[in-house]
Amino acid sequence: MRRECTVQYIDHVGVAVNEIEVSMGFFRDTFGIESSTITVMEEHGVKAALLLVGQTRIELLEPLGPETAVGRFLQRRGEGLHHLALNVNSVGQDLEVVKARGLRVIDITPREGLTGMVAFIHPESTGGILMELVQSIE
Amino acid sequence: MRRECTVQYIDHVGVAVNEIEVSMGFFRDTFGIESSTITVMEEHGVKAALLLVGQTRIELLEPLGPETAVGRFLQRRGEGLHHLALNVNSVGQDLEVVKARGLRVIDITPREGLTGMVAFIHPESTGGILMELVQSIE
Repeated sequence: MRRECTVQYIDHVGVAVNEIEVSMGFFRDTFGIESSTITVMEEHGVKAALLLVGQTRIELLEPLGPETAVGRFLQRRGEGLHHLALNVNSVGQDLEVVKARGLRVIDITPREGLTGMVAFIHPESTGGILMELVQSIE
Repeated sequence: MRRECTVQYIDHVGVAVNEIEVSMGFFRDTFGIESSTITVMEEHGVKAALLLVGQTRIELLEPLGPETAVGRFLQRRGEGLHHLALNVNSVGQDLEVVKARGLRVIDITPREGLTGMVAFIHPESTGGILMELVQSIE
């Protein structure tokens, strides 16, 4: 088995926000970053939008309620940087690499995300960063 | 005057760490992200390293002491995502755009950073994200 993940590039930087339309307007008006469609993901408890910036994206996440993961994050820390997602060639194999290295994973197997198959790694194993592996669906 | 910044891509994602060599080893061994040189920036109170990931970089920041900006961040929040840097064409003009929009800036004029001229914007004006504008030095 490989010993390292197959990281290609930063897939996106996740940002927790109170009101996704307001944040999208801020990035558009201040930085000229184009708005995108908003997707409601009931099973993840968020509304999400991916704003393209060069090769990578800013992912805005508004919780659907206070008891969701992002809702609890907002209560604890307020709006701001939430997670870092790395685009990989092979999320299934990479998740096995990560588990074999002893990291604490949030997803035991990859699951469907906004733009591909994804798996989250717990911040306690990564130096305080909630990390996501993403394999794009072609 | 232009009304928006000239954002090209995400220049880097800044990460506050306790021990830069340890973090660099983690990213190398787990994700196959190559290590780089460590630069001591006395005037900013940090040791810094830029790890190339596709078009963008992960910037690791270890404080030189507890009374530095990054040292205080670590005491308050622990290791983790610290700031988001956008690469722009014209940091001087873009900083004027940002100020004209009423955002609170940390740098009144651009100053020299690790890879170019930079200016920071306060998180209270950006939805909780410490943001940096970077104009690369060719």
